[in-house]
Amino acid sequence: MQKIWYGNSFRLGVLGGGQLGRMLIQEAINLNVKVHCLDPDKQAPCSELATTFTVGSLNDFETVYAFGKDKDVITVEIENVSIEALEKLESEGKKVFPQPRVLKLIKDKGLQKQFYADNNIPTAPFRLISNQSELNSHLDFLPFAQKMRTGGYDGKGVKIIKDADVFTTGFDVPSVLEKFVPFQKELAVMVSRNERGELAVFPSVECEFNAEANLVEFLFSPAAISTEIEQKAEEIAKDIIVKLDMVGVLAVEFFLTQDNQLLVNEIAPRPHNSGHQTIECNTTSQYEQHLRSVLNLPLGNTALIQPGVMINLLGENGYEGEVVYEGLEEALSIPGVKPHIYGKEITKSFRKMGHITVVNKDLEEAKVIGRKVQQLIKVKSK
Amino acid sequence: MQKIWYGNSFRLGVLGGGQLGRMLIQEAINLNVKVHCLDPDKQAPCSELATTFTVGSLNDFETVYAFGKDKDVITVEIENVSIEALEKLESEGKKVFPQPRVLKLIKDKGLQKQFYADNNIPTAPFRLISNQSELNSHLDFLPFAQKMRTGGYDGKGVKIIKDADVFTTGFDVPSVLEKFVPFQKELAVMVSRNERGELAVFPSVECEFNAEANLVEFLFSPAAISTEIEQKAEEIAKDIIVKLDMVGVLAVEFFLTQDNQLLVNEIAPRPHNSGHQTIECNTTSQYEQHLRSVLNLPLGNTALIQPGVMINLLGENGYEGEVVYEGLEEALSIPGVKPHIYGKEITKSFRKMGHITVVNKDLEEAKVIGRKVQQLIKVKSK
Repeated sequence: MQKIWYGNSFRLGVLGGGQLGRMLIQEAINLNVKVHCLDPDKQAPCSELATTFTVGSLNDFETVYAFGKDKDVITVEIENVSIEALEKLESEGKKVFPQPRVLKLIKDKGLQKQFYADNNIPTAPFRLISNQSELNSHLDFLPFAQKMRTGGYDGKGVKIIKDADVFTTGFDVPSVLEKFVPFQKELAVMVSRNERGELAVFPSVECEFNAEANLVEFLFSPAAISTEIEQKAEEIAKDIIVKLDMVGVLAVEFFLTQDNQLLVNEIAPRPHNSGHQTIECNTTSQYEQHLRSVLNLPLGNTALIQPGVMINLLGENGYEGEVVYEGLEEALSIPGVKPHIYGKEITKSFRKMGHITVVNKDLEEAKVIGRKVQQLIKVKSK
Repeated sequence: MQKIWYGNSFRLGVLGGGQLGRMLIQEAINLNVKVHCLDPDKQAPCSELATTFTVGSLNDFETVYAFGKDKDVITVEIENVSIEALEKLESEGKKVFPQPRVLKLIKDKGLQKQFYADNNIPTAPFRLISNQSELNSHLDFLPFAQKMRTGGYDGKGVKIIKDADVFTTGFDVPSVLEKFVPFQKELAVMVSRNERGELAVFPSVECEFNAEANLVEFLFSPAAISTEIEQKAEEIAKDIIVKLDMVGVLAVEFFLTQDNQLLVNEIAPRPHNSGHQTIECNTTSQYEQHLRSVLNLPLGNTALIQPGVMINLLGENGYEGEVVYEGLEEALSIPGVKPHIYGKEITKSFRKMGHITVVNKDLEEAKVIGRKVQQLIKVKSK
């Protein structure tokens, strides 16, 4: 008989204590699942909410191993962790979801791209290089994006290279060069799978980026795409999680090209920024779904309840210090504005400080309100 | 300028640390409002989630006064608290919502009934008695419910008296005798008001009671009533909160008589069992609305998003000990089943251990699933 997954006798360990962990805890409260977090920042968003909160490095083998040893299931809310420690825990019989081999693959954008190529998953053409000097041998491949194979996150570690002149500014680390493909839209699909192999996929969403920060700034649910493209995106997402043989939720980001081809951009094996709106807009949220997946519970229904727009609240450029949310109270007076403030005391330029979901029966009206809210709320320092 | 209500510099104090406080905290996380609880039970549902959790008596003047002194706003999730301490805090300039005078009125069912009578609020005829022996002078009033003026809660402190033979089992304390009125339905409306006087009312719900425990067991949203009765119920609810000059959310329970008259049964000045389903079914939940009210923020939109059925998970009669939820995992496989487990380690006969909201586009289908879930989940001890 499986161990009871709720109450004090069961311990779910989460590597990372940021906003994704915080929203996971909010859902875990409903199921009375006890969440224990490890994070290097003692003031991380989960610090006051986790059943226990351990301050320590996510990349230190001993720290992660010691943290995982007394947990029943271990999961992550960030990929940049000691995979070696997770492998050891797994080899000792611990449940680690997503599995360490999946984290290893995804953490390295080169291996990730190779995985797509090997499994007939559509993605933009790519090449691998070891250092900056090799950029010169890829003049024929311009324009392209140079992506650091490891260590990039939240828009960092990516450079768009349009001509040979900017080769000098390229990263001097092992990188993927990804052919620049003109696209009409960026889409994202959240898919999940539990240990017994059940699959569930959320309807696609559409993402709009802040060009300056290279971060998702605006997200629409559902995506304005044809049923055919919707089905194709969902199929590709399911195909990836099955071929990865992965347990947990997986975010799949797509480019929809100008000729209506879907190309996989990146994947992330955890709850993701592009699934925040599921809290209000879908029967089951991505956070609840992640819990259901890693605890091997039946997966939840992913149906859309209502359209929504998600706006990331990024720290205003040039402000650093104790945070203040200008315009938040005025935004609260607008029907359907649902704030999620992450509880970070200190704001920095482009730091993710919170998000707003705007729900409305009519997506177009939600977009209008979303734009207004985006103008209204300014994340500044006191 | 008003003090900023989010972050560490603002402290919301809540008297009580039960499930209502727990769900209030879940919403407070979204707004990054720091919630500090006082409760006599060190294992209360809020104990691990509150920013600080103080163990102490809610009825002890000194304990409540000391707890409230360093808070910015004080509210309650239970009425049975030291009103004297709250009055002193209020007299010293603290914001206390609901106001102590409202708690005083509502805590005493005799004063509550008199308030309805004085303010032309429809309610069943009543009489007041001081002790059991006086029951004999009210033969002409049979059948009636005898309700203890103070101290009753969760179905305790109420007795249905149909004939003079059972006078010997009546309570020997000051009581309200309420004329038994045959009714077709029991309804409930949540209404809220902030300090600047804004009002918002949630659509009516329909309640079904467990006759044995005299507790709400089953709740449907929206209520199957005419637009005319819906409007009337909402008007009465608004009328009550305005006449009380109260800040916070207020639950108003009604009898709908066989000739379609609405009679106010009871009111409760806080989030309430009959508003649980607002978490999933309405744009704003009663918990978020309570926070918005007591923090003097704009009130949220109360529109129904989707129909729902709420089922209280009561401890099975005869079981006491470490809790186990039989059938919960099977219930999770049914689309639209949203569990809320309150985190109480010990179950007792009829103890409120959690609730399930079943959401569905079709209320009738939600009811069918709700009945099934009610049969499926048994709250027992190990």
